[in-house]
Amino acid sequence: MSLDDPSAKPHDRLQLALSDDLSAVNSLISDRMASEHAPRIPEVTRHLVEAGGKRVRPMLTLAAARICGYEGPYHVHLAATVEFIHTATLLHDDVVDESAQRRGRPAANLLWDNKSSVLVGDYLFARSFQLMTETGRLDVLRVLSDAAATIAEGEVLQLTAAQDLGTNEDIYLQVVRGKTAALFSAATQVGGMIADADEQVVNSLFAYGDALGVSFQIADDVLDYAGVATQTGKNIGDDFRERKLTLPLIKAVAKADAQERVFWMRVIEKGDQRDGDLEHALALLDKHYALSAARTDALEWSERAKQALASVPDHPIRDMLRDLADYVVARLN
Amino acid sequence: MSLDDPSAKPHDRLQLALSDDLSAVNSLISDRMASEHAPRIPEVTRHLVEAGGKRVRPMLTLAAARICGYEGPYHVHLAATVEFIHTATLLHDDVVDESAQRRGRPAANLLWDNKSSVLVGDYLFARSFQLMTETGRLDVLRVLSDAAATIAEGEVLQLTAAQDLGTNEDIYLQVVRGKTAALFSAATQVGGMIADADEQVVNSLFAYGDALGVSFQIADDVLDYAGVATQTGKNIGDDFRERKLTLPLIKAVAKADAQERVFWMRVIEKGDQRDGDLEHALALLDKHYALSAARTDALEWSERAKQALASVPDHPIRDMLRDLADYVVARLN
Repeated sequence: MSLDDPSAKPHDRLQLALSDDLSAVNSLISDRMASEHAPRIPEVTRHLVEAGGKRVRPMLTLAAARICGYEGPYHVHLAATVEFIHTATLLHDDVVDESAQRRGRPAANLLWDNKSSVLVGDYLFARSFQLMTETGRLDVLRVLSDAAATIAEGEVLQLTAAQDLGTNEDIYLQVVRGKTAALFSAATQVGGMIADADEQVVNSLFAYGDALGVSFQIADDVLDYAGVATQTGKNIGDDFRERKLTLPLIKAVAKADAQERVFWMRVIEKGDQRDGDLEHALALLDKHYALSAARTDALEWSERAKQALASVPDHPIRDMLRDLADYVVARLN
Repeated sequence: MSLDDPSAKPHDRLQLALSDDLSAVNSLISDRMASEHAPRIPEVTRHLVEAGGKRVRPMLTLAAARICGYEGPYHVHLAATVEFIHTATLLHDDVVDESAQRRGRPAANLLWDNKSSVLVGDYLFARSFQLMTETGRLDVLRVLSDAAATIAEGEVLQLTAAQDLGTNEDIYLQVVRGKTAALFSAATQVGGMIADADEQVVNSLFAYGDALGVSFQIADDVLDYAGVATQTGKNIGDDFRERKLTLPLIKAVAKADAQERVFWMRVIEKGDQRDGDLEHALALLDKHYALSAARTDALEWSERAKQALASVPDHPIRDMLRDLADYVVARLN
């Protein structure tokens, strides 16, 4: 995740502009991840929450609320809610993906066990609903529970779609909305809602978060094939080895001739991968301009994110959100 | 589960008295477990939801609402919410327990995989929050999100407490509240709340559900050692083989002499079980009157459940709830 990169300027500026709010969010998170009765819970959550991550999602909520002039306390609850949903999702994802690492540390399912990851994730989901209930805003509850359903639906869809060569760009987009964009867009939307912003502004904040999330995920999927390992913290071709049909491969498969299809069937659907296959896959991506086309898609979504901000009140933090949309794709150059 | 027994008269009478409401709940469940994008979701949920179970928890909500004179539509949403939370919990439990069977069918994690069970469970949790949001009642949302947190906390506590000989009756009660009583009590409580019943009535409905749940779970744990396999659908000593420190064992361990402690350490903490160990464990339960003492506890909780109903409006359905509390422990005689 390049948003974790220390050179991520817009992110750092947001962090500075929102530092008081972020401290309040961090306190609330520490407070609510505690459990009087089950000490395993804070052990697991502390491992993950204190590893940090850049708090991108809660910052989106705080930023949206501030841009809309909100002065009350509940944007902090909503930001913590969003981070809890995100953390719960990570815990469950690591069980599903059998991950070895998360945020640069051993994944919780390896340090404890899958059971703890499943149940502590459930605890954080429940805690997130408690937090949002405290805001007293049913409209916000509706948006966040819809987002939680979209996230889970996207993850289930990914289970069946990832290794199926029939997966097209529409299905990919649904998966991406689930795994990334749904929480980004809910994060920005509820920030506007808690501030009682106009409907048009709330819709634009939603559109910004959605497009930012899609752009971010496509960029991530491109970097899996085109990035520099030290920069992304991942190895080139991880998605290929895990037989994940992401946008670059979907574009290459769509243009494959009969012989190429046989190759993709073997390495992705059957999972029979041999020495030299990754290199051959990269050559096919190149032949069909698949990485370049996916990069263009990421840039278009970034552009849409910036356009959405046009209907959002003028504010220094709005400009940082615009720069964030640029930054997400800057790493593709 | 003896509530699944066809001779469960109070249950059958409740089902008859609430049959219109229950049909509405079943329709709502079918409707909301669908997913446009991810067909795996209804496959998994249908497997579990259509296997039935006796819908005890949703019936508790419907019964409480009816007793309090509720005429509106939202008790149906709350009953479906309660069943979704229960079903999500079962899916995750089966992953945690590595179960082979659930409701007399192969467990979902074996028919599909652990991933599907984790993610479909998450989907049902999210759906349950959508459903309760539709009621427009923040007080109800608070109760149910608190219950969801208590459930997850109890399950995590069970992970660490189950094989630890230091687990005492207080800890056992916390685990039981989490795994069983929290959803029973939330189910009855929100039934009263949606009907705008007096606070005292709502509190009594909570107390009934709580005591019924505790009584039910203790009875289940006693039957694991004292039941007839064909009647309970379980084998004698399953909990022993799984090294679960339930109430009968806790009582026997509390009275153990030095030599007996060595035995319990070996079979429960170390998990080193040999031929004849179950028979020896049963003899120790007998020596210390542990089953009999646990049975007495179950009867006391059943009595508390019935006493709580004294402050609830007079109603034919209230009498069925009273009989249900008797029925839960009748199988111990």
